[in-house]
Amino acid sequence: MSITAPNLQAASPRPRVGIVGAGQLARMTAQAAIDLGIDLVTLASSPADPAIAACADHVVGPPSSLAALIELAGRVDVVTFDHEHVPSGLARSLVNRGSVVRPGPAALELVQDKLVARADLAAAQFPVPAFAPLDGDPVAGVSAFAADHGWPVVAKARGGGYDGRGVALIAGPADAAFLADVPPGSWYVEAHVPFVRELAVVLARRPSGEVATYPLVETVQQDGICVELLMPAPVDRAVAGRATSLAVALANGVDAVGIVAVELFLLENGGLVVNELAVRPHNSGHGTIEGTVTSQFENHLRAVLDWPLGSTDLMAPAVAMANVLGDPAGGDPMRRLPRALTVPGAHVHLYGKSFAPGRKLGHVTVTGADMAEARAAAQRCTAILTGSTIG
Amino acid sequence: MSITAPNLQAASPRPRVGIVGAGQLARMTAQAAIDLGIDLVTLASSPADPAIAACADHVVGPPSSLAALIELAGRVDVVTFDHEHVPSGLARSLVNRGSVVRPGPAALELVQDKLVARADLAAAQFPVPAFAPLDGDPVAGVSAFAADHGWPVVAKARGGGYDGRGVALIAGPADAAFLADVPPGSWYVEAHVPFVRELAVVLARRPSGEVATYPLVETVQQDGICVELLMPAPVDRAVAGRATSLAVALANGVDAVGIVAVELFLLENGGLVVNELAVRPHNSGHGTIEGTVTSQFENHLRAVLDWPLGSTDLMAPAVAMANVLGDPAGGDPMRRLPRALTVPGAHVHLYGKSFAPGRKLGHVTVTGADMAEARAAAQRCTAILTGSTIG
Repeated sequence: MSITAPNLQAASPRPRVGIVGAGQLARMTAQAAIDLGIDLVTLASSPADPAIAACADHVVGPPSSLAALIELAGRVDVVTFDHEHVPSGLARSLVNRGSVVRPGPAALELVQDKLVARADLAAAQFPVPAFAPLDGDPVAGVSAFAADHGWPVVAKARGGGYDGRGVALIAGPADAAFLADVPPGSWYVEAHVPFVRELAVVLARRPSGEVATYPLVETVQQDGICVELLMPAPVDRAVAGRATSLAVALANGVDAVGIVAVELFLLENGGLVVNELAVRPHNSGHGTIEGTVTSQFENHLRAVLDWPLGSTDLMAPAVAMANVLGDPAGGDPMRRLPRALTVPGAHVHLYGKSFAPGRKLGHVTVTGADMAEARAAAQRCTAILTGSTIG
Repeated sequence: MSITAPNLQAASPRPRVGIVGAGQLARMTAQAAIDLGIDLVTLASSPADPAIAACADHVVGPPSSLAALIELAGRVDVVTFDHEHVPSGLARSLVNRGSVVRPGPAALELVQDKLVARADLAAAQFPVPAFAPLDGDPVAGVSAFAADHGWPVVAKARGGGYDGRGVALIAGPADAAFLADVPPGSWYVEAHVPFVRELAVVLARRPSGEVATYPLVETVQQDGICVELLMPAPVDRAVAGRATSLAVALANGVDAVGIVAVELFLLENGGLVVNELAVRPHNSGHGTIEGTVTSQFENHLRAVLDWPLGSTDLMAPAVAMANVLGDPAGGDPMRRLPRALTVPGAHVHLYGKSFAPGRKLGHVTVTGADMAEARAAAQRCTAILTGSTIG
């Protein structure tokens, strides 16, 4: 007679991931966490933040509070981010206390100061726009820079910008006047790049260096805000290959862990110039939820837990995404949701945020065989949600 | 000068849906609710139930408690279910108090008593197995029934069965002995149907009667438990058409609202016989999460809110799903998750439930161009999770 001991051990502890920030990125990360049996714990600025209802647990406190970060880190196996607004010194302090922080403080530092990022990338031979600090009189500095590089130029805040904030296109000296009022040294200037398209590479990277790259996307911007994504980007394979190689090299160079998004300018001659860099799930990757086998949110979790990365293959030949930006004429898109759901094939994602003009309140993804059709459907659904279409 | 009044009304109240039960169905419904900006509130039996972490809010109490149901109904716009274990009288009481309950008490009643369902469907000319109540001596009743219909027969509990419980295949009189110990009148007997395949139709139905049907699925069962789904089912179009028409007629007949799942036996001669009926999201529909444009969970929410239903089109030619059933040899599948994630294209869904042998702890879906490949990948991933493969 053979006796087999029953293997009824206690349930394994579920992995716990802490995420600093409780906006839509944390909210979508929470959805992915549910499928993988991961408990996501968020550090929220306010009990009304969008991610809280979707997360297993939360801490309320500012991301600049070491005490709040220590509280979060104490509840989880690894700490990650839905935004870059954690002072890198605090992230380093968590690491020094034995917490696992992914991406690490060095990668955070790089994305927190765009001037440092420009300088570091230029030093490493990555193609970036010509740039200069504005250490003295910023208005004079802009004119001096333009004398060398031509008008227009672009002034950027070194830190804290998003969705078109902290970026100014400057056509001539008069447009630079506002810089007299910004804190000294807080902005810098760079050449305006005459791009033909804006592209983005989204990839996931594990601590071991394993990388999974998503199909290249074209981002369509209005007033500095991304309004649409087209995946795959309508560019030839050579361009896509070079863009992807550049992004992988960049992610390796900064030893990023998790999702990395690299925004690029495509020049008329086929050249590529690095625009922005993010080391977290990114708006450029929202089309991956329905559009690829493994979403950027799931792959971010897998990467920060050092688990095998999932397939980034397309689920359909064409994936179009449109952002739902608050429209003063339309107000809260929730009111129009039932009508928006009549658009065939539209995947609506609303973020549970309160309405404000220009605020990203959601996005719509449509997959299909034909990009023009998918794009038109995503635009139509978004127009209904924002109230910019009467119907 | 024209003045436009800003349209900055307060945020619309988010729709609130109450769901009785906090198991994996409520958990996956919660994921869908997040995208639609819906607050899902669950009535959980225990604070450890799988759905709680994913829901916006919860009430703890038994589904048989009118006080708990009233508490839930008071917090939401509509009440729905992730199981059938709410006494229909209590559902009727909620309706009488002015709550919106979808599906309604009549549909709940039908699925709560399989004998009543058999009788009602037979009366309405739906094809069902021959059946008989066991009102007197149940052991003698089974033998008398078998004398007319032949052995084997199937004995079923009228209420409360799931995952193979409450169903017994009876090859001869000796197998019926256990019925001497069941409460009088609580089981019934039916003919064993010599099926060639088991099929399921999943559909969503709005209060208005609008219906969206999913592609027909084949369910593969072992010991009365569904272990795999194949979508679309490998049957000819005529069979799929008849199965779908039958399910739509049945859903209309019981005035169901939300997801309806109709399990069918396919006979060698192409005939169809109704096996089981559910009026809630169902295991047979789990492949819709990645496999169709709109998941059964999203369409359940849309239907109970009387919103337009979403497309049920396939995202790929072949969708295979395998259930993760607790294996005594393997224990908690969470321990093997990282290894399971190496299977290309596998979408793993773990339910956050504690391990028990035979318990449904999750499922794996793979989409692709080829059913045999998709099925093999789903089986491989599931085998790793359950520990039934050494590797």
